[in-house]
Amino acid sequence: MLKPEILDPQGQAIAGALPRLGFPGVRSVRQGKRFEIELDGAPDGQTRARAEQLAETLLANPVIEDFTVHLRD
Amino acid sequence: MLKPEILDPQGQAIAGALPRLGFPGVRSVRQGKRFEIELDGAPDGQTRARAEQLAETLLANPVIEDFTVHLRD
Repeated sequence: MLKPEILDPQGQAIAGALPRLGFPGVRSVRQGKRFEIELDGAPDGQTRARAEQLAETLLANPVIEDFTVHLRD
Repeated sequence: MLKPEILDPQGQAIAGALPRLGFPGVRSVRQGKRFEIELDGAPDGQTRARAEQLAETLLANPVIEDFTVHLRD
């Protein structure tokens, strides 16, 4: 997701359009990306470290984006 | 996220590039979207129903995409 202090024009456009489309009561919308990645290995600390390194160096832009890693079996 | 039976060329391109970029051991990558939405009202069943209707009718394309709704306080 874009960091909270970074403007998200796409999310703002969606938030602006929703009341016209019949969905009032929306305070804000922010849009981001989501990756589902299958890695070799057990869902342990080492795999989490690999996933975090992958997210930080290649999938996210840490200058403007935050990311979280969730491990699943 | 795209449904599992729908081809995801963007995810495949990432999965194909990762070994070259120093990340071996990646079996698959699928890319999707994520929305953080602030709605008026309490995080109860009614708000969940509104969020699900919003996702199904406007944010996702239910022909090719699955979605899940997570409520947070």
